[in-house]
Amino acid sequence: MAVIVQKYGGTSVGTVDRIRNVAQRVAKRWREGHKVAVVVSAMAGETNRLIQLVHDTCSTPNMREYDVVISTGEQVTIGLMAIALEAIGVPAESFMAHQIRILTDSVHSKARILDVESSRLQATLQNGKVAVIAGFQGLDRQGDVTTLGRGGSDLTAVAIAAALGADVCEIYTDVEGVFTTDPNICSNARKIDRISYDEMLEMASLGAKVLQTRSVEFAKKYGVPIHVLSSFVEKTGTYVVKEEPAMEKVLVSSVTYNRDEAKISLRKVPDRPGIAAKVFTPLAEANIVVDMIIQNISREGYTDLTFTVPKSELARALEIIRATAEEMKVAEVLTDEHVSKVSIVGLGMKTHAGVAAKMFDTLAKEGINIQMISTSEIKISCVIQDKYTELAVRALHDAFQLGEEGGSVSQERL
Amino acid sequence: MAVIVQKYGGTSVGTVDRIRNVAQRVAKRWREGHKVAVVVSAMAGETNRLIQLVHDTCSTPNMREYDVVISTGEQVTIGLMAIALEAIGVPAESFMAHQIRILTDSVHSKARILDVESSRLQATLQNGKVAVIAGFQGLDRQGDVTTLGRGGSDLTAVAIAAALGADVCEIYTDVEGVFTTDPNICSNARKIDRISYDEMLEMASLGAKVLQTRSVEFAKKYGVPIHVLSSFVEKTGTYVVKEEPAMEKVLVSSVTYNRDEAKISLRKVPDRPGIAAKVFTPLAEANIVVDMIIQNISREGYTDLTFTVPKSELARALEIIRATAEEMKVAEVLTDEHVSKVSIVGLGMKTHAGVAAKMFDTLAKEGINIQMISTSEIKISCVIQDKYTELAVRALHDAFQLGEEGGSVSQERL
Repeated sequence: MAVIVQKYGGTSVGTVDRIRNVAQRVAKRWREGHKVAVVVSAMAGETNRLIQLVHDTCSTPNMREYDVVISTGEQVTIGLMAIALEAIGVPAESFMAHQIRILTDSVHSKARILDVESSRLQATLQNGKVAVIAGFQGLDRQGDVTTLGRGGSDLTAVAIAAALGADVCEIYTDVEGVFTTDPNICSNARKIDRISYDEMLEMASLGAKVLQTRSVEFAKKYGVPIHVLSSFVEKTGTYVVKEEPAMEKVLVSSVTYNRDEAKISLRKVPDRPGIAAKVFTPLAEANIVVDMIIQNISREGYTDLTFTVPKSELARALEIIRATAEEMKVAEVLTDEHVSKVSIVGLGMKTHAGVAAKMFDTLAKEGINIQMISTSEIKISCVIQDKYTELAVRALHDAFQLGEEGGSVSQERL
Repeated sequence: MAVIVQKYGGTSVGTVDRIRNVAQRVAKRWREGHKVAVVVSAMAGETNRLIQLVHDTCSTPNMREYDVVISTGEQVTIGLMAIALEAIGVPAESFMAHQIRILTDSVHSKARILDVESSRLQATLQNGKVAVIAGFQGLDRQGDVTTLGRGGSDLTAVAIAAALGADVCEIYTDVEGVFTTDPNICSNARKIDRISYDEMLEMASLGAKVLQTRSVEFAKKYGVPIHVLSSFVEKTGTYVVKEEPAMEKVLVSSVTYNRDEAKISLRKVPDRPGIAAKVFTPLAEANIVVDMIIQNISREGYTDLTFTVPKSELARALEIIRATAEEMKVAEVLTDEHVSKVSIVGLGMKTHAGVAAKMFDTLAKEGINIQMISTSEIKISCVIQDKYTELAVRALHDAFQLGEEGGSVSQERL
């Protein structure tokens, strides 16, 4: 008899029929004798409809009120889900953030969870009922509704699992788990059985869309085992868990890519202390997230500085950078939107240096030029021309034998 | 500087444009220096959409969860209204039932308001902000959401007005006020300037749709002056207030009608003590509201019993009555769906007997047969054949000179 938290996203509860299907899956676990708490998102399309209503009313809405409107989507789903469960004989009770006090800070539309008061939930589970919880929403200290931002329902599920000391937090999605790479690009991409929090964190921040970094960080912090699986197929998915000894044997566990970056280069920047601060402080103040930064060695008192920003922020970033560049007498500002970032992630890299060389060699053999390189303990990213994205992904996936049964190249085989 | 509670129904906030129009009206009062609290309904059509979702999920839904789903409509409107107000420079704050503790009992889908904790509202108004409150919803002692049933937003507005000790509760609708009769039937129907709570109560229960009896009862109990007016035309409407000396001078203030009744007659009922209880107890147990009841004097040990029920309940009522009739050896059960009830209401009747005679005489002159009669201190109702409804309404409206400037026939003129 386990305590299980399940989370179903907008697609899984997109219609009344799908809500009834989910109810059947929940009922199955409940009938097996488990204590089940279910976290649900708004029905697919509903949150966008509500955002549209808000923006039709005002293009710069008051964010406290934005959250009041947006949070109704999840409320509708919990009511319908509890009704669907009761209709098939499963006693259920729905809860909004104010009923179980999912306490957050007051940063509306992207609040952070501070605490979950689990006593009412515990009582519901103890009484043999299924608890159905609205994802994505919280309550601040004043008693006002907040929302957690995109991917917030995953975060709710992990926080509820932590508060309940659940045995597992099952995240149901429209894919079967976490893959060695995007199956749309690489037909022999394999589902990964178990992966560490750290690898999953890197993958999420490098472009894998299946889980958001915030949820994985939260799960890591509280040691909540996550199981990512399909809500349409009954099949074991991917477990995201604490690092296990066997995991370090795998050098590379996945290949990810991200086409959403643009490159900005400042040519001939006068090289003196404080230039990096001068360039990046105004960007930070404008809330523009700079990803990779490369500064070449100085030549004749000048250096070149290159960095990437999200494509959607390029225009704003350029405006700011041009002002800085003028002030600093930079020779030239260059931009390139036709780039993409290809990365490999793996715990085994920590203890093995040959991985980077193999990655560069693989790309070189395909005639792909590497424009920027960035590394961490467990990942290597290369910026390349974006037309080579698929080719690079497939070549790396093959080179590290990720499509083969038994996982990727082990240290012994490299 | 007054404290004003305004309530806008679903039609008045049916689109984003209309919400912006309402915001302008609210802003006007606020700029005049008044303290304004606004109660809003769900956008027109929204509550029905939510009810449909619930019924698509289950035809006999758990009512706690029904309320969770249904109450989201008002939540969307308060957020949008507060955003629309802020957008035109009016500081505003929205509130749900759980934030201002509109305490109700736990009878889901038709809860009764027990108490309103007004301190947070008071603080908002004191800080010069407009408070925007979700109508229709409440919170029970367990912290669960409840709803107040149809017309619930009016009730919320009156309760908020009572809690704030407001100077007036303005109910905005799609008509210009309370009329002497239905203007669709009688072209010279006049808007009534002031009317007593008791007259309004009778009119509401006799078929006038502008206000519901529960709201008027609540207003009467707490002495809240109601102002019913149009949300589309800027014009004084009708004040519903405590009885004033001048009101008694008006014999008849309005003519109402109701086509939604059906008549059931039991012929040759053995006349002995307890028969009425025997007939009506099973109907009450089935929650069927019986309106008028007539029992004729006994003849040769038998009597006839006639009563009316809502047309929508006729089938259920008949099923129950046929069982009772068989048991009691009643000769015959007759039904008639082609009836309607025409009523006149007026405080002045209390002290004058000629009113009833004038009503019967007016109907007789038009050749309309009266099938049943029922009276209270301030109203007289007649059941007639329904094809005569419009004719009867117009004849009575004319006979009591309701279309004329200066009100209806005074006692002196009768």
